[in-house]
Amino acid sequence: MIEEDKRLLNHASDIERAFDSYFPQSPSNGDLIKSMRYTLLAPGKRVRPHLTLEFCRLFGGEEEHAFPYACAVEAMHTYYLIHDDLPCMDNADLRRGRSTNHRVYGEAMAMLSGNALQAFAFYLAATNRFVNAYGNSRACALLAEKVGCRGMCGGQEEDIQNEDRPVGRSDLERINRKKTGSLFQASCILGCIAADASEEQCASADQYALNIGAAYQIIDDLLDVTVSSRDMGKSALTDVKNMKTTFVTLLGKDGARALAEEYTEEAVKAIKGYKNSEYLISFARDMLDRRK
Amino acid sequence: MIEEDKRLLNHASDIERAFDSYFPQSPSNGDLIKSMRYTLLAPGKRVRPHLTLEFCRLFGGEEEHAFPYACAVEAMHTYYLIHDDLPCMDNADLRRGRSTNHRVYGEAMAMLSGNALQAFAFYLAATNRFVNAYGNSRACALLAEKVGCRGMCGGQEEDIQNEDRPVGRSDLERINRKKTGSLFQASCILGCIAADASEEQCASADQYALNIGAAYQIIDDLLDVTVSSRDMGKSALTDVKNMKTTFVTLLGKDGARALAEEYTEEAVKAIKGYKNSEYLISFARDMLDRRK
Repeated sequence: MIEEDKRLLNHASDIERAFDSYFPQSPSNGDLIKSMRYTLLAPGKRVRPHLTLEFCRLFGGEEEHAFPYACAVEAMHTYYLIHDDLPCMDNADLRRGRSTNHRVYGEAMAMLSGNALQAFAFYLAATNRFVNAYGNSRACALLAEKVGCRGMCGGQEEDIQNEDRPVGRSDLERINRKKTGSLFQASCILGCIAADASEEQCASADQYALNIGAAYQIIDDLLDVTVSSRDMGKSALTDVKNMKTTFVTLLGKDGARALAEEYTEEAVKAIKGYKNSEYLISFARDMLDRRK
Repeated sequence: MIEEDKRLLNHASDIERAFDSYFPQSPSNGDLIKSMRYTLLAPGKRVRPHLTLEFCRLFGGEEEHAFPYACAVEAMHTYYLIHDDLPCMDNADLRRGRSTNHRVYGEAMAMLSGNALQAFAFYLAATNRFVNAYGNSRACALLAEKVGCRGMCGGQEEDIQNEDRPVGRSDLERINRKKTGSLFQASCILGCIAADASEEQCASADQYALNIGAAYQIIDDLLDVTVSSRDMGKSALTDVKNMKTTFVTLLGKDGARALAEEYTEEAVKAIKGYKNSEYLISFARDMLDRRK
């Protein structure tokens, strides 16, 4: 169970401590920093930065070397969450167990804080002092590609259009790959860059990422219809409310669960040949049973 | 007059051609790419990328080497415009002579296209093939710093709060420095990085940028109250409508104009010791008389 995963929990608290020191609490903080801190420090699972750190370790790097990259992917994910909750997007009220950012700080501040977090993510990737300039510029380019119009933003675009037209399985796979898979890819490969991993190792990480990302999104869709907002810490039934096609509406709960298991085993296959991959294998499987 | 400035006009058309080839028109383009193209290719002055190219030339670099950086700062500026026009910000109807992005593509798409343009800007900076990885990672770090919570986004934050509290001259100077000056700084210094300029040269470019940026913002404020929306190509009187304090409300039109002239002469002073600085000197002075 990921709720009991010590490595994940330790990384999560390292990440939170780092955010707290990047943007220290201070009476002089204006609403922008307050709003950034609000969602950055809300209790999250920190799955993406965990993958960055674990892939660095898997390929023989020091975890510390991947740490700025790990913070970068989590900052990027946090920007995504803040913007995705806005009224013009999912119009959600609850996130990470708290009111959504715009409900507390208003739409303008939520938009700005997402924008500033995207910039901050690139700042961290560009200035990782444990990696040389070549690695850092690769990290920035990869992040940019994965969150841009052909990655995460492109997935969000199609997701919006998904709300009022028929969507088939291959559409949904493509949307999820862009919307969720892309940042998982960046997360895993940034860990590889920090470890100075080989091309073959990067390709394995990429396969693991795409498949674990696909499984992750399906489990998210399942949780949306099976778990209460309170237990999940974010607004439940938003897909239903927004009339979105998901793997649950396409395949039913059991079919969706079976597909998530298939993707998970594909992820496992991608890395099981590497020494010390046991942890990332069991992590992928444990994610199937997460409850939020 | 900048309207007759051949170098500016040539650079502007180079930049537009490049954007058109980065995101070619195609029947397969979805709304996201269409929305990005819509504002990227709307006729703009392209002052910021022009500065990038001119500073590269001033310090002995090949203009071509700065070109991806020039596109990066213009993409960044375009994202800023799209988001700044949104209903939760300035709620503007007109930009670059056309309806604002969200009036055509809706709020969600306008937000996503701004987000994707920010990512694209970093992609361009990270992958400039004419500059080594050290330069590109410096360029990314500088851009990130200048557009983040302590730069452009921080200026927008204070600008919002400026709408309903008394604002003095030093507040306004600080807000303008962050909101407008920061991206001018990045624009000029990215040109220096492409030319592999010295620290002293970068510092001169920085001073020029800050002062020309301050003058630029004051002229914008003056145009807002003196020129019609049609002539300016963007919504006039938005500051009045939003009850914003500007240098025009603080010092009157003549006082504001005099201050813009002072800043311009400071900009001139910063670079006049360099050979071949005549063009950038007359460019700074010409900007005082722009009509949009």
